[in-house]
Amino acid sequence: MTADTAGMASQAVQGKKQVSNAFDFHKGMASLSDDERALIERRKRILGTMGPLFYDRPVHIVRGQAAHLFDASGNDYLDCYNNVACVGHANPRVREAVNDQLGLQDTHSRYVQDEILDYGERILSYFPTAMDRVNFTNSGSESNDLALRMARVFTGHQGVVVTTNAYHGITSLVSSVSPSFGTGVPLAPFLATVEIADVLTGDLPESQVNDILQQRFACAFQKLHDGGFGVSAVLLDQIFSSDGILPGAPGWVNHIAQAVHRVGGILIADEVQSGFARTGEAFWGFQRHHADADIATIGKPMANGIPTGAVIYKHQIGEAFASCTRYFNTFGGNPVSMRAAEAVLDEIEDRHLLAHAQQIGEQLDAQLHQLLGGTSRFRGMRHAGLFLGIDIGSSDSASSDPQATRAIINRLRDMFILISSSGPDGSTLKLRPPLVFSSADVDRFMQACSTLVDEGYFG
Amino acid sequence: MTADTAGMASQAVQGKKQVSNAFDFHKGMASLSDDERALIERRKRILGTMGPLFYDRPVHIVRGQAAHLFDASGNDYLDCYNNVACVGHANPRVREAVNDQLGLQDTHSRYVQDEILDYGERILSYFPTAMDRVNFTNSGSESNDLALRMARVFTGHQGVVVTTNAYHGITSLVSSVSPSFGTGVPLAPFLATVEIADVLTGDLPESQVNDILQQRFACAFQKLHDGGFGVSAVLLDQIFSSDGILPGAPGWVNHIAQAVHRVGGILIADEVQSGFARTGEAFWGFQRHHADADIATIGKPMANGIPTGAVIYKHQIGEAFASCTRYFNTFGGNPVSMRAAEAVLDEIEDRHLLAHAQQIGEQLDAQLHQLLGGTSRFRGMRHAGLFLGIDIGSSDSASSDPQATRAIINRLRDMFILISSSGPDGSTLKLRPPLVFSSADVDRFMQACSTLVDEGYFG
Repeated sequence: MTADTAGMASQAVQGKKQVSNAFDFHKGMASLSDDERALIERRKRILGTMGPLFYDRPVHIVRGQAAHLFDASGNDYLDCYNNVACVGHANPRVREAVNDQLGLQDTHSRYVQDEILDYGERILSYFPTAMDRVNFTNSGSESNDLALRMARVFTGHQGVVVTTNAYHGITSLVSSVSPSFGTGVPLAPFLATVEIADVLTGDLPESQVNDILQQRFACAFQKLHDGGFGVSAVLLDQIFSSDGILPGAPGWVNHIAQAVHRVGGILIADEVQSGFARTGEAFWGFQRHHADADIATIGKPMANGIPTGAVIYKHQIGEAFASCTRYFNTFGGNPVSMRAAEAVLDEIEDRHLLAHAQQIGEQLDAQLHQLLGGTSRFRGMRHAGLFLGIDIGSSDSASSDPQATRAIINRLRDMFILISSSGPDGSTLKLRPPLVFSSADVDRFMQACSTLVDEGYFG
Repeated sequence: MTADTAGMASQAVQGKKQVSNAFDFHKGMASLSDDERALIERRKRILGTMGPLFYDRPVHIVRGQAAHLFDASGNDYLDCYNNVACVGHANPRVREAVNDQLGLQDTHSRYVQDEILDYGERILSYFPTAMDRVNFTNSGSESNDLALRMARVFTGHQGVVVTTNAYHGITSLVSSVSPSFGTGVPLAPFLATVEIADVLTGDLPESQVNDILQQRFACAFQKLHDGGFGVSAVLLDQIFSSDGILPGAPGWVNHIAQAVHRVGGILIADEVQSGFARTGEAFWGFQRHHADADIATIGKPMANGIPTGAVIYKHQIGEAFASCTRYFNTFGGNPVSMRAAEAVLDEIEDRHLLAHAQQIGEQLDAQLHQLLGGTSRFRGMRHAGLFLGIDIGSSDSASSDPQATRAIINRLRDMFILISSSGPDGSTLKLRPPLVFSSADVDRFMQACSTLVDEGYFG
């Protein structure tokens, strides 16, 4: 079979699950202007349609500053979505650090280099003493992939437990433990999933939440034992972004950490979403839960957009892995990425962005509750720091309503406000702005929401 | 089991295969100076020992320029090894492009952006018309991982064929099709391997080489069919770097491409090593072989060190994949990486680095043949462009000699010349300098080699 003759008949289209808020490459073209359509057609000719675009009318970005993005016409988009540019778009300090290092050198870790050691030492200082080693990668996906490999070698087991709508990345292995892709991506045979959203979005008392979740994870462990896989790792996004943004009352994750340790596995804290001060309450999501994590994986905001990731781990795990094989990542820990990452930490510290995330998050939460709490489509809201989820329902709020959610997102986009959605059916509005989001930005966002309320978007 | 109590007894140390030319973290410490030892101890405390270091006395790099690297004492190391910094260390054009873009924005491909489209269009112009789509990643590993996922979906098969000492990267999937890691990394059950080094380093006539290799690949296909896996892809590094650097007479790879098409699979050309003008004869290694590749994967030199990779493919393959799932890579195709990659192409074009690689490669090959051809440890030599392999043998050259190879590499390192080794037992000297390697650089390298000949390192 050559690429030219092979049929696609065997590929089940119904298995595909599109990302929330995706542009429809087939039906979406008709409603675009000629210029917009020409641009998307060009993109399709070059990139195909494997990669999603956002919004019914995709946004064409040319520059940015702080929490604002601009298109070629100079329209000022308020960025309430992007966590990668955590210290602001076009951050001058990151730019200067990168420019300085590019004037020096940018080779790899098979030579001794100060940049990787200085940053490595510094990032470890943000972790508990027991998590005392770091290896660098280029993305959260590479980090989670490596973490799972390390867990397998260390525990001698293969089984992995995740949440029912988890997303952990795009390598073959981590996509096979990411049920949020839908049935188009086969799940690993050694995977067990646990539903948490129903419990964490309800009104149950904390002790009951803990009991239920512990029982469910125990069932998952049993399933993996029965399947002959054993339990290698529980892998948990510490804000449960794709499950609908579920910070929950701090603490329940540590009960799961203790439980997985008892069955011979480890806890991998996926901090790609929840890390770097995002939750306001602690620098890492697992610390917010006081959880005894064995490995943490980081990525996205780490270097404000320069591809960088890392795996932080207890040294015993790394020693087990090193006794079997090596891990050399060509770009991992390269001096340019390290300098950019260092500048991000400088900005977070000097601008007190942890406290800022906490404060602005509270501000947004309070004002949104006040504005939306009484609307008929409002079903609930959760937040930790600058990560907020608002559940949107049918006009009587009896059931979730992805279409109404999508309408809100696209109406905001037309008002130059960028947000997106999350959750199993995409019915949770997702707010996750750069950490430098200001009070003035809050005001602008709230004014836009107020307009949408007046226009009836919230029922 | 917690990280603190788990035993490592089950981990078989004998399975570990160290990278060629690796520093020995255990035995190597004794021969270092106090300062060197303190530096390595610091590195071990931060990074552990999962990641390898080069040389018996590791090199501490602080800056670079063109094909030269410098340590803190100002020693000028001639870089005969690094392909990533293909247009030279601290390249001003790459630096300027990155600095310019960091002043604008660095978000992701869910917005329309000119940078990814401009570079995407340009990189596709370097490929045959049928390879008409590109998706971006952050590394060669991510590229190969995605390529194998795409091959599976497109063909409906799972089996993969690689060479016996192949290296294709470090994700779980691609490391499981990389036998060069040794038995410490379990190979995938759906993998078949083909030995090529014996045939391509011998004196057989080209037609016989083709016949033997076609028979061997046919056996591999049969094995995968018998195992119930079918044939998804033949995945071949187009210079066979880890197998000992085996350019071979151009053409044989296309016979394999035709054969894999006949059994329903595709050819993935791993261009992470052989791409971007490296072989001097063609921009991509598979073009040198006139091979009908279905997918090409690129990485390392693409953006001179800024993490960037890509998968280039026939659109039918991407459409099959897109009908099942999406592929969004947060950093993949980010504007900063794209601008750096664009600057690399500008440099390759404007400085005629394809022809330069050809010319300097010929120069090195001729002079090395003249100097080493008559020495008793010389067993053979191969090259394409600026990728050269020299086989080092025992004093009568009857068998390969990794120790003698290692001695040469470390002696050169003490003379501030950086090379490394390759091949199944690390007995092939590997020369793979930045493409900007000059005639003056050749002279300095040859003088050092001449000294080593006088000192008896080549017998």
